[in-house]
Amino acid sequence: MGSKYPPSVRCWLPLWALTLEVALILIFAFFTTYDVPSGNQKQILGTYQVLQDFTVMAALGFGFLTTSLRRHGWSSVGFNLFMLALSVQWATLLDAVLEQPFQKKVIISLSRIRLATMSSMSVLISADAVLGKANLVQLMVMALVEMTAFGGTRWISRQIIRVNSHEVTMNIFVFAAYFGLTVSWCLSRALPSGLDKKVQTEKVQMARSSCLFAMLGTLFLWIFWPSFNSALLVKGSERKNAVFNTYYALAVSAVTATSVSALAHPQGKINLIHVHSAMLAGGVAVGPSCHLISSPWLSMVLGLMAGLIAIGAAKCQLVCLNRVLEIQDYSGVHATFGLPGLLGGFAYIVMMAHQVYWNPLIGYQVLTDVGDLCLAVAMGMASGLLTGVILNLKIWRAPHEAKYFDDQTFWEFPHLAVGL
Amino acid sequence: MGSKYPPSVRCWLPLWALTLEVALILIFAFFTTYDVPSGNQKQILGTYQVLQDFTVMAALGFGFLTTSLRRHGWSSVGFNLFMLALSVQWATLLDAVLEQPFQKKVIISLSRIRLATMSSMSVLISADAVLGKANLVQLMVMALVEMTAFGGTRWISRQIIRVNSHEVTMNIFVFAAYFGLTVSWCLSRALPSGLDKKVQTEKVQMARSSCLFAMLGTLFLWIFWPSFNSALLVKGSERKNAVFNTYYALAVSAVTATSVSALAHPQGKINLIHVHSAMLAGGVAVGPSCHLISSPWLSMVLGLMAGLIAIGAAKCQLVCLNRVLEIQDYSGVHATFGLPGLLGGFAYIVMMAHQVYWNPLIGYQVLTDVGDLCLAVAMGMASGLLTGVILNLKIWRAPHEAKYFDDQTFWEFPHLAVGL
Amino acid sequence: MGSKYPPSVRCWLPLWALTLEVALILIFAFFTTYDVPSGNQKQILGTYQVLQDFTVMAALGFGFLTTSLRRHGWSSVGFNLFMLALSVQWATLLDAVLEQPFQKKVIISLSRIRLATMSSMSVLISADAVLGKANLVQLMVMALVEMTAFGGTRWISRQIIRVNSHEVTMNIFVFAAYFGLTVSWCLSRALPSGLDKKVQTEKVQMARSSCLFAMLGTLFLWIFWPSFNSALLVKGSERKNAVFNTYYALAVSAVTATSVSALAHPQGKINLIHVHSAMLAGGVAVGPSCHLISSPWLSMVLGLMAGLIAIGAAKCQLVCLNRVLEIQDYSGVHATFGLPGLLGGFAYIVMMAHQVYWNPLIGYQVLTDVGDLCLAVAMGMASGLLTGVILNLKIWRAPHEAKYFDDQTFWEFPHLAVGL
Repeated sequence: MGSKYPPSVRCWLPLWALTLEVALILIFAFFTTYDVPSGNQKQILGTYQVLQDFTVMAALGFGFLTTSLRRHGWSSVGFNLFMLALSVQWATLLDAVLEQPFQKKVIISLSRIRLATMSSMSVLISADAVLGKANLVQLMVMALVEMTAFGGTRWISRQIIRVNSHEVTMNIFVFAAYFGLTVSWCLSRALPSGLDKKVQTEKVQMARSSCLFAMLGTLFLWIFWPSFNSALLVKGSERKNAVFNTYYALAVSAVTATSVSALAHPQGKINLIHVHSAMLAGGVAVGPSCHLISSPWLSMVLGLMAGLIAIGAAKCQLVCLNRVLEIQDYSGVHATFGLPGLLGGFAYIVMMAHQVYWNPLIGYQVLTDVGDLCLAVAMGMASGLLTGVILNLKIWRAPHEAKYFDDQTFWEFPHLAVGL
Repeated sequence: MGSKYPPSVRCWLPLWALTLEVALILIFAFFTTYDVPSGNQKQILGTYQVLQDFTVMAALGFGFLTTSLRRHGWSSVGFNLFMLALSVQWATLLDAVLEQPFQKKVIISLSRIRLATMSSMSVLISADAVLGKANLVQLMVMALVEMTAFGGTRWISRQIIRVNSHEVTMNIFVFAAYFGLTVSWCLSRALPSGLDKKVQTEKVQMARSSCLFAMLGTLFLWIFWPSFNSALLVKGSERKNAVFNTYYALAVSAVTATSVSALAHPQGKINLIHVHSAMLAGGVAVGPSCHLISSPWLSMVLGLMAGLIAIGAAKCQLVCLNRVLEIQDYSGVHATFGLPGLLGGFAYIVMMAHQVYWNPLIGYQVLTDVGDLCLAVAMGMASGLLTGVILNLKIWRAPHEAKYFDDQTFWEFPHLAVGL
Repeated sequence: MGSKYPPSVRCWLPLWALTLEVALILIFAFFTTYDVPSGNQKQILGTYQVLQDFTVMAALGFGFLTTSLRRHGWSSVGFNLFMLALSVQWATLLDAVLEQPFQKKVIISLSRIRLATMSSMSVLISADAVLGKANLVQLMVMALVEMTAFGGTRWISRQIIRVNSHEVTMNIFVFAAYFGLTVSWCLSRALPSGLDKKVQTEKVQMARSSCLFAMLGTLFLWIFWPSFNSALLVKGSERKNAVFNTYYALAVSAVTATSVSALAHPQGKINLIHVHSAMLAGGVAVGPSCHLISSPWLSMVLGLMAGLIAIGAAKCQLVCLNRVLEIQDYSGVHATFGLPGLLGGFAYIVMMAHQVYWNPLIGYQVLTDVGDLCLAVAMGMASGLLTGVILNLKIWRAPHEAKYFDDQTFWEFPHLAVGL
């Protein structure tokens, strides 16, 4: 079945992946070295803990986040891990070269790997928007281009606009979301007319087990989000505030998500996929300003607004994104990361502008913050468009549109009947 | 389908939840402030780790613990998170007010959030007994009443009976179990005669995937239980003993649970749901005395007894609780938390009485410990009865009995056939 | 159904398990005591974290790793926990007696429990090869014999061959793999001729949900593997190197596994079970030498080779192991732990031999390392053969061959139709 649709990727994928992997090994062999041992055992323990939290978020959280499409669970988890493993290697090199461009050897330290894991989450977010429409070679290309573009954006923000490291990294959500949506738009195609509509609809439906797996992924992200938001802050008091604010914002957005979702259904039933999207929105929205907020109510308001926006976006995107733009963002990247990320950016700018009132000297900084947010969105869309164009090339042997959102294109099944 | 049964909760749930959320935000705005930064970075790291362990237990562990009912998985996980997020907010305020009643501003610190997460586990335990019989508005009311009642019980124990913080918190299991069972009893109703018996039986059966999800939740609780039992102990040696004893008690009760479960079946087959109940019983039973036991064999004996009792209770409750009292405790709250909690309480009292033999001065303390345990059970039942009466009011628009234990009452499904 | 096949284990299992448990409690009562409190709070925190990582790996990781057989998920997870809980108790005693043979009381400390958890992973690995062919009494016997044999191997390595603690423990993979495969070979039997071939084939197939559970287990192992490889190293710089090298080896083997798996299928489809096997191979292969490698490229090469070997082994074993030797290693123990473990052993020896060139004095040590690796394989096979012979005795009431790989032999199902 299906032998006429997908061009075989039998040699294509191993060829590209192994070539890339060998190239990476050679670069690592010539240009990297490990950190000289430093004495501070305690700090290493702390950094290692955070790194582990990140890996749980990246591998388990983002992996299972999009398993709710009933026919696409294996690809979600499997491809996610592939991209994570690849992106971390590339990000380690790239970050180091961009930060210290004229050194002979890149020094690999725990905090560099931690940062690389953080950066590679941008790929995982974007991939959520594209998953189901691209094969693994395409995703590999996307990962490399996106890591490079994100590295470039970070470099411009830090070196030219001079924004601090925490803010730069918190732009990851808007960058990744708009990158992913643009790529997804480029890969969208009208279905061939002769196709069974019912099968197509059924593919993107949720099922009982698959939604529980998605809930598992969402919960991992929800639990470890405070680690993510506080990781790059240096001062102890700022880290503590970041943990507090993220915690309360997430709590409020979980409550909001569940309750408001009922409002959007004629019979008051809750949509679990909307809840998945919206309960993380609070963490995203509070990200850029989490270290500045000094009282829980502000972060709770942000969480409430993020939850409302995310549920609204999840409900509207069926019409706006999926029908009009044909982006087919079934996993709700726009609702979870796009709009709440923008909200978070605005909140940070408003908070800085409010401080200008007391201290006019930082007025210039507000402008740079606005510029930085715009840069992230613009770079995301521009590099996404570029990636989309590249991915539409014939050489990647993309899956046929009729095979979108289907594990069977990529994975060996014992036989077709064993589906559920 | 079903349109005549459940009164719409379309506006009901959002109305109540958002009103409550806004009220909480206002209270937080006027009466809370963050902790002033203290210098001890190391301690913060440790507290944060424990808080994270707790959140994993609460969100993942308790969430997936009761997914074994095949038609009720989404509600188990979704409602659990909703209640956790809400209870933590309420508990932070309540604990602070009860502890330092005449302060102008409540100071929010990491250890207060940790304690709030601990307290809100009582709601999650009780909800396991009620799940499937109440809608989200009812559960919300229950969470608020229970947190308040538990806060009150804690306050009486600490301020009037003068029991230490660890013991007070370890009563959470008996309090929560008997609270939940009483509420569940109030909500139990005979099935309407015209109903399809087969569908009703099928609803409370386990299925292959759903039991694996329940196992996942149980394992998370099993793994992180030592963190729970040792969290409130201050002295390093006591914490270490608590970890050791909990670890061994859990190991023995897991072995006992699996093997004795086979004895209860005519063909020697093991019942996975009984195992879920019983393997956690060891951790519950060793809780109150885990810091006092100075040799592993005692905690192992406690684990063995707890495992035996829990399997016995799980087997008997089909007759005693479910048929006679019609409580329908399908998730085994009584077997996991009720009876083992009582066993733990008795073990602690015996251990204290044994010390009286050597040091008669602490004789009075044994009495207070007995009183404290009775107080927890009595308060649990009394406030449970009150809650049950409140939840039976018409204004909450409770689901019809025919819709008990069914996700479809609350969640949007693509269509009914997509079940498994 | 099936009433004539499986001899009842109704009393058999509880009888043996409870007797053993009581015996263990008595031994603990007379011969163990807890650690005297030491002052170093920080170190305790670190050890506890690592212990928790190990428990997650052992209970969740190894538990869910082999759930991909569609009819065997409950047994995989349930039996795994039973064996873990039992082995840890036995290992605590055994390790202590072997290390300090003439002490009156065994002192139980956190690091001893950590080591016991590590040792008991050997049982979990072997059990993966045997699972589906043995009942719980047999697995219990196997766990006791294997822990004793592994304890003996460790003792010979440490006391007679004088290998350091890290190397000794890293031999766990080859020991456990060849032990398990030998036992599995002893329990393999030709199917009775009158049996339905289709049912037998269907049993060992993967299904959609069960493979996602297996992915979950694999990811837990993948994430926490750096903790495993670095746990027994004392020096901070060695630990850090171990974490780095394991991290990169795992990343490369994940990429390799996914891409090369496509090469092995005529239509270029990826086999998820092969990927499960191969993505962990990197961590196994880098284990023995992870603290010596001072540049990432070497560990990446090891990861690449391990991934290739594991995919090759997974593909070939269908012919070599399963058909010729009739071992039926469906969960890929040989591909994940056996061959990559040997590769890791060779890599370590080559690395040591390379150092001989510069420092001929350590030439003798290379010989001991070769001897140590051979000892692990030989002891694994010898004790596996012994265990296999013991397990074939009639008294354990082994399941009938027709009931291999089937949960229904051991677990209570509501009714047979509720399968998926």
